[in-house]
Amino acid sequence: MNNIASEKYTPLTVDTVIDYTRTRPELRAMFREGEVLEAVEVGDGNLNLVFKVWVQADPKRTVVLKQALPYLRLVGDSWPLPTDRARIEAAVLAIEYRLVPQHTPKVYFYDPDMYLTAMQNLNNHIIMRKGLIQGIKYPHFAEHIGLFMACTLGYTSDLVLDYKTKKEEVARFINPELCKITEDLVFTEPYRKTERNPYHKEIEPQVLALQADDALRSEVAEMKEKFMTQAQALIHGDLHTGSLMVNQTETYAIDPEFAFYGPMSFDIGAVIANLFLNYAAHEVRTIDPDTRADFRKYLTDTVIQLWHVFEREFQPIWAQVDHINMPKGYQERYMLRLLQDGAGMAACKMMRRVIGLAGVEDIRGIENVAERSTAASLALNIAYELMMQRHELRKIEEMVEIVNDSRPTYPWRE
Amino acid sequence: MNNIASEKYTPLTVDTVIDYTRTRPELRAMFREGEVLEAVEVGDGNLNLVFKVWVQADPKRTVVLKQALPYLRLVGDSWPLPTDRARIEAAVLAIEYRLVPQHTPKVYFYDPDMYLTAMQNLNNHIIMRKGLIQGIKYPHFAEHIGLFMACTLGYTSDLVLDYKTKKEEVARFINPELCKITEDLVFTEPYRKTERNPYHKEIEPQVLALQADDALRSEVAEMKEKFMTQAQALIHGDLHTGSLMVNQTETYAIDPEFAFYGPMSFDIGAVIANLFLNYAAHEVRTIDPDTRADFRKYLTDTVIQLWHVFEREFQPIWAQVDHINMPKGYQERYMLRLLQDGAGMAACKMMRRVIGLAGVEDIRGIENVAERSTAASLALNIAYELMMQRHELRKIEEMVEIVNDSRPTYPWRE
Repeated sequence: MNNIASEKYTPLTVDTVIDYTRTRPELRAMFREGEVLEAVEVGDGNLNLVFKVWVQADPKRTVVLKQALPYLRLVGDSWPLPTDRARIEAAVLAIEYRLVPQHTPKVYFYDPDMYLTAMQNLNNHIIMRKGLIQGIKYPHFAEHIGLFMACTLGYTSDLVLDYKTKKEEVARFINPELCKITEDLVFTEPYRKTERNPYHKEIEPQVLALQADDALRSEVAEMKEKFMTQAQALIHGDLHTGSLMVNQTETYAIDPEFAFYGPMSFDIGAVIANLFLNYAAHEVRTIDPDTRADFRKYLTDTVIQLWHVFEREFQPIWAQVDHINMPKGYQERYMLRLLQDGAGMAACKMMRRVIGLAGVEDIRGIENVAERSTAASLALNIAYELMMQRHELRKIEEMVEIVNDSRPTYPWRE
Repeated sequence: MNNIASEKYTPLTVDTVIDYTRTRPELRAMFREGEVLEAVEVGDGNLNLVFKVWVQADPKRTVVLKQALPYLRLVGDSWPLPTDRARIEAAVLAIEYRLVPQHTPKVYFYDPDMYLTAMQNLNNHIIMRKGLIQGIKYPHFAEHIGLFMACTLGYTSDLVLDYKTKKEEVARFINPELCKITEDLVFTEPYRKTERNPYHKEIEPQVLALQADDALRSEVAEMKEKFMTQAQALIHGDLHTGSLMVNQTETYAIDPEFAFYGPMSFDIGAVIANLFLNYAAHEVRTIDPDTRADFRKYLTDTVIQLWHVFEREFQPIWAQVDHINMPKGYQERYMLRLLQDGAGMAACKMMRRVIGLAGVEDIRGIENVAERSTAASLALNIAYELMMQRHELRKIEEMVEIVNDSRPTYPWRE
C-alpha cells in the first residue's frame, strides 16, 4: 500500500527501455547480444506506461513492459496512485496463468523497484472493443470468457481455497486506491451532480431523471455495498472489452491492476455490460437493419452462451464442495444470486460509461450528436430495466429479453 | 498470524503472576511497593489463562491479566491456536473503549511477548448467563447492548470509516484460526454426523430431522457464506451472554478475541440467540407459570427493545451518510437485512448450542434428562422457525411472535 516510489524508480522512455531490457537476465534468451532492438510506447490507458520491444530482424521475439505511473494520467498529477498496484497486477497474472494459461498473458518477471511487469506481447490480437465497434464477431469468445471467469472466480473463492489461504489472500490483495476509483466513478458520481460527469447535454433530461430516482439509487447503493464488503473471490476488477485482447481463435484478459477480493458479480457484470453497450451503439453505428439485427443477435447470444459456459465450468467446483453443508438448493441459489447481482453490476457499469468520467468509445466515439444521444439513451434504458428487474430474473435468457425489449428515449430515425 | 510463541513467552501461574505485575510500570500506581498482593486464576474459558490480582489490604485496587494459551483447552494440545488473537483482542478492546467506554473494560497495557492483556477487573459484575439462569432481570441491558452494537458495528463500517482505513482494518483484523472455529462449530458440524456433536440421545430424532432438511441446510450455508465473505464491520464475533458482564446498572462486553471484519448480523444474532436459549431453558427451569411468563416477557421485551435501541443509535450514523447516494430507501433496506440476517444467525447460534460441541449451561446444565430434552427441543424449534421465516420478517415484534408461538417437541408436563 506504499504510495511512494522506490529510490530506484525511474519512468522509462522509448529511449531508455531498450537499455533496461538488456539488464534483465530473464530476457537474455529472447534478446541476444548484439541484436538490434526496437521499442514503442503504446499505453492508451491512464495509469501506466506500456512499451513494446522487439528484435528488429525478428519481430516475433517481442515483449511488453508495463510500468506503473504514480499518478492517474487522466487528471494529471493531481490524483496520485499507489505503485503497489503493479505488485498486485503481477501477482494476479501469476494466479490467473496458473488457472487459465490459455487466456492469460505469460509474465516473464516483475521488477519491484521499477513497478514494472514484463509479459507476453499479444501482437496477434486486438482490443475487443475496437473489433466489436467494427461489427467483428468473435465466435469463441463466449466459451473463453465463461471459462476464464469460472476458473479465476471459483478457484480463488472459499468454495475451493482453505479457510486460511483465502483470508491471507484477502489481506494480500487489499487495493484501496484502485477500489476507490471504482467506488467513485462507477457507484457514486454518475448519480449526483458533479462536473466530472461529461455526458453530452442532449441526454440531460434522462440523466437528471435517473439521478432523481430514489428506487434506482437504493439499488445502486446496494451494489456499491456489495462491491465494498463482499470478499467473495479474487476478481479482475476491470473486465471490460478494453481489457480483452482477442482474435478469431484466442482471448486474453489483461490489466488486472484493479484486482481485489470482491464480488464475482462485478466481473460478470462488467463483461455483460460492455457487450450491451456495444449492442446499444449499433443502434446507430450499423444502418442496415439485417446486419444490425444479425450482429446484435451475436452479442446477445454471446451473453447467453458465456453464462451457460460459466455455469458448466462451475460444475467441477460444485462437484468438489461438500454436499451435506452445501446442498443442491444452496448451489442453485448461489448461481441465481450471481445472475441477479451480475445484472445489477452490469447496470451500474453501463450507466457510468454513459454518464460518468470514463466513457466508452462505442458510444462516446459516435460523432453525430443525435446518433450519440440515441445510443446513449438506449444504453441507459437497458441499464435501468436490468437494475429494476434483476430481483425477478431467473434465467440469462430473461436478461436478453429485457435488452431486446428496450428502446432509445431519443430515436433519431424511424 | 504467528502461531509460534515468542521466546519470552511463559504461561503464568498464580505463583508467578504477582512477580510479573511488579515488572510492569503501568501498574505501579495501583500496586505500590511493599504492599502484599494476592492472585487467583479464574479462567473458565477454553483458550486463555485469566488471573485476578489485588492488594490484600485494599481489594478494590485490582486488575485482570488475560494471557493467551497456544492451544484450545477444550480438546487439549491437539488444537493449536495462534497467540495472535491476543493482539487482536487488545486492539479491539482499544477501539471499543474509544467508541463505548461505558461498556468496555479499560485496557492498562498489552504485552506482545507474553500475549497478555491487563485490564479492568469487573469485580462488581457477574456473567450474564448465570444471572439469567437464576431468573434475574437486567433492566438496562437492552439499552446498553443496543448502544454497544450500534457504535461498535456502525462506526467500524464503510458507513463511517474512509475507504482506506476500512480496508487496512480488514487486513489488520484477519483472524483465520478463530474464524475457523466458528465456521466449523456454528455452521458446519451441527448439520452433519460427527462425534463432536454431544447432544443427548433423547433429542436425536429431532436432530436427525434437521440434519436431513435440505432447505434448512441451504439457509445455513448462506449464513456461513455471509460469515466468511461479508466484511461489513469489526464484529465482536462471540457476543453471547457468557461474554457479557452485568449488574443492575452496568453492562460490559468482554473477550473480543474472535473479532474480525464480518457481518453485523452475527453479533446481533448472537445476543438474540442467547436470550432465546435462556427463554427455552425456562420452560423447565421455572415451574411457576406466572413467574415463567413474567421472566419470558422480560426476555422477549429485551429483544424488542435492544433492536429499537440499535435502530435509534444508528440514526446519528445515517444522519452523517450522504443521502444522495444512500437514500432513505437504502437505509431502510439495510436495517431490514440486518434484522432478517440477524434472525438467521441467531438460528445457527441456537442450533449449535443444542447440537454441537460447545453447549450452553442454560440448557446442558439441566440435570433431568426429560426436562433437558424439553428445553433443547424448544430451542431447536424456535431456531428452525426463525431461520425458515426470516425472509418474511419485517419487524422485530414478528420475531418475538415466532418465539412465543413455538412449542417443544418433547413436552415433559401438561
